[in-house]
Parts: sequence; structure tokens; C-alpha cells
Amino acid sequence: MAETPYKLVLLRHGQSDWNEKNLFTGWVDVPLTAKGREEAARGGELLAAEGLLPDVLHTSVLKRAITTANLALESADRQWIPVKRDWRLNERHYGALQGKDKAQIRDEFGEEQFMVWRRSYDTPPPALDDSSEFSQADDPRYAGLGEGMPRTECLQDVVTRLLPYWETEIVPDLKAGKTVLVAAHGNSLRALVKHLDGISDEDIAGVNIPTGIPLYYELDEHLKPVTANGRYLDPEAAAAGAAAVAAQGSAQGPAQ
Amino acid sequence: MAETPYKLVLLRHGQSDWNEKNLFTGWVDVPLTAKGREEAARGGELLAAEGLLPDVLHTSVLKRAITTANLALESADRQWIPVKRDWRLNERHYGALQGKDKAQIRDEFGEEQFMVWRRSYDTPPPALDDSSEFSQADDPRYAGLGEGMPRTECLQDVVTRLLPYWETEIVPDLKAGKTVLVAAHGNSLRALVKHLDGISDEDIAGVNIPTGIPLYYELDEHLKPVTANGRYLDPEAAAAGAAAVAAQGSAQGPAQ
Repeated sequence: MAETPYKLVLLRHGQSDWNEKNLFTGWVDVPLTAKGREEAARGGELLAAEGLLPDVLHTSVLKRAITTANLALESADRQWIPVKRDWRLNERHYGALQGKDKAQIRDEFGEEQFMVWRRSYDTPPPALDDSSEFSQADDPRYAGLGEGMPRTECLQDVVTRLLPYWETEIVPDLKAGKTVLVAAHGNSLRALVKHLDGISDEDIAGVNIPTGIPLYYELDEHLKPVTANGRYLDPEAAAAGAAAVAAQGSAQGPAQ
Repeated sequence: MAETPYKLVLLRHGQSDWNEKNLFTGWVDVPLTAKGREEAARGGELLAAEGLLPDVLHTSVLKRAITTANLALESADRQWIPVKRDWRLNERHYGALQGKDKAQIRDEFGEEQFMVWRRSYDTPPPALDDSSEFSQADDPRYAGLGEGMPRTECLQDVVTRLLPYWETEIVPDLKAGKTVLVAAHGNSLRALVKHLDGISDEDIAGVNIPTGIPLYYELDEHLKPVTANGRYLDPEAAAAGAAAVAAQGSAQGPAQ
């Protein structure tokens, strides 16, 4: 095993087309906007400026995370590192909300139900029907999951499917002394942060992760953070970004 | 094992900065030009138009091949596939010629020596000194190779270091029925084509692979091409591109 602290960098993808349109995205595979691509490149610049060069990359199988990682590694001049992609790093499956307008859902179902679906730990939205245009039931990248493919998820479900990947794929890289970059999504990273920092089921509702700003964790030999909640490489931008995420869904809300 | 024919797609990276400047590149990690990025995206469009969607990607550890693959998969909407990167897919190490102007080398050493270094099967250029600014001796991506890291290579050396990767990493993917995309370089792909088509040590000198145009091989159960020399997805552009590669090094030569 390598010396501690182990080095872990989390990176939420930059703005996507549907962030901009304020739609629930989940597993729908939408691309980054031009702004999102800039955020991603800037994320790589922050890594390079910090001298925090990843040795290995883990991504979801969704293009907004993959493109973010590609662009960040390009600007950090680190494109050659090994990469693993896995659906377990995907965004939370938003069930029947996928493709729906966030403000519209809020108006239609009320603030309380809206917040339950967005931030309740253990209440998933209604399942997405396989016949929906926003379903991934026929997507070849999930063919191996068979009937195990989610049709909706709450954050607890994300924790449950994420942790096996964390334990079997990411932790061994950390213990080998590699600086690990995980390029993923708002909710899969919230699930991971919840695990790392031991955040309660209630308190995780208040945790928002901004887009495109590397979040750096040093972990001790028990894989516990040396500094609780890690450290954003650009703390000012991160605070503004997290506030923007928290505010989304309001009519005049920002586009995260 | 999957049914034959197995499906293999080779893709040489698009134009790089040093292709444009007519410099010997080898293992120097130069980026694509804007034209090279367009070629890469066009390569992906050709794959999508053919319905030839890769299930797995293999690249070198050089950014011109990696970026080419990223852009091609982005335009083919196939970014989520698994990827493996390996130095064994790298361009030929050009030894002491790395960083030198091709036309200048031709003028200085004469046409005969120039062509020996470029196209002889078994005569490598002089070795590159580790102190050279164009050396990769201290590059962390090759740290695992130790003293086995090449300081120069002839095409035979490329064949020798490529084939173990072909056998242990690529062939199993083919036999599993996956459509395999290999994004690599002029000489690592010539080495592979030599092996696949059983081209002699002499005849391989006349084989030139154009940039950015997918070369599709169907392989039988013995991993022999169903159609000799495969098939370019854009044959007209491929013929023009191959002629351009053959002409390079002349003062008015094209930028491949």
C-alpha cells in the first residue's frame, strides 16, 4: 500500500444542454453546452495549477461526464492516463421526471413534492415507463444489466449501486498511491461525499456540488477525509456554484 | 466465441502540429491541428453513416491518437464505450530524428539515407539521447518500462512490441464479438496491417495509411482478412491521403 494521504479528486460535469433548459436529466445522455465545455477546460487548468495531476480516471457512461473529463485532461495535459467508465457513476435516474421541466413540475406538484423528489433520501419519483422517449431500456450500454437496470432512483439507491464500484475499482487505485479523478454527476458525487464524510440521511439534502470545479479530498488510511468536506480548488467559484444549484427549479433559477 | 467475421476498425490520427510543420514526431506528444480535429470528427461521421459502431476502443498513450478517438466517438455518439490505452500502440520512436525537419534531413543526408530511415524495415535511426528536449526518458507514462523504453525503433521493432498487445488485448475483444476501434499512428497501424495481410518486409515500405479515414477489416476465424487490405470507408479520400503520405519530406510535400 502507498503512503497516506490518498488523493481523490471529484469533478462534476459542466453545464449540459438540459441544465441550461432546466429539465430533469438523469440518465438521458445530453451533451455539454459551450459554457459547460469551458467549465471543463477550466477544471483541468485548476488541476494543473495545483500540480494535482490525475494518474487514473473514472467516469460514468454519460457523455456530459466523459466530455468534461476529456476536456479537463486535455487542458491539464494528462490525456494518456488509464480510464474506466461505469454506469454506477451515472447521475441518479430521475424516473418519470426525466425530460420534464423543473419549474413546471414545481408548479404542477407544489414545492413540497418537488423537494421530496429532488432531495428526499429514500423516496424515488415514479418509475419511467420503458416506452418513454426518455427511457434507456433499449440502450446497448445497459444491456448487461438486464432487469436490474433502474427505472427510477432515490439518492439511497445511488449510494447502494455506487459503493460496490467505489470499493472494488476506486479504492484499489487510491491504495496503489494513484491520484484518482472521478468525473461524474451532482447526485453520484453527493452519494460519494455522503459516504466519505459520514453525512446523515437528513443533512445530505443540504449538500450541493457545483459544476466544473475540482473537489479535492485527502484520505487517511481508513479512507476518511483528513479535512472534512474536502477542499474546492476554487473556493469562491464553488460557493457561488453550490448556491446556484440549491436555487434551481425556481422560475428565475440559474441553469444548473 | 462470437460469429465471424470479426470487426476491426483502424483509425490513424488526424493532422498534428508537427505533421503540419513537416517534423519527425515519433513519441513527442504533439496536439492535433484544427484540421486534424476536423478529420477526426469526420472519421466518426463515416463510422456512424456506415452503422459501424465501435464497442471498445484501444489507443496509444499519445494525445494526437487519443484526441482523434475522443472526437470520432463524439461525432459517432459512442463516447461511453470502454477504452484501453497502451504505449505499444504508439507511433514508431524516431530516435535522434525526433523534432527534426524532414526536408532538412533529406537535404543533409540525401534521399537514400532519408528513405532508409523512413521506410527500411529493420534499420532504426540513431538512438535519441536521454538529455534531448525531445526525449521521453523522464515521462511518467513510460516509467513502468524502465530500461526497456525505446530510444529509437525501426518498423520491425514496432511489430515486435505491438503484437503482444494485439494478441492479449485486442484479439480477445474481437473474439468476444466486439467491434474494435484502434486509434493509433502511421507506423503502428502499418505494423498491424503488415501482420494482418501478411505483407512482406519489402512490400510494407510501399504501404501508406492516410489520416482520419476509418479502415475496416472483416476477419475470419483465423484472424485473416476476408478482403485483403481491408476497406476504407471513404476510398477516394483515402487514395489521395495515402499519396500525400508517400510524397512527404519533399520541399513542397504535403503536411502528413
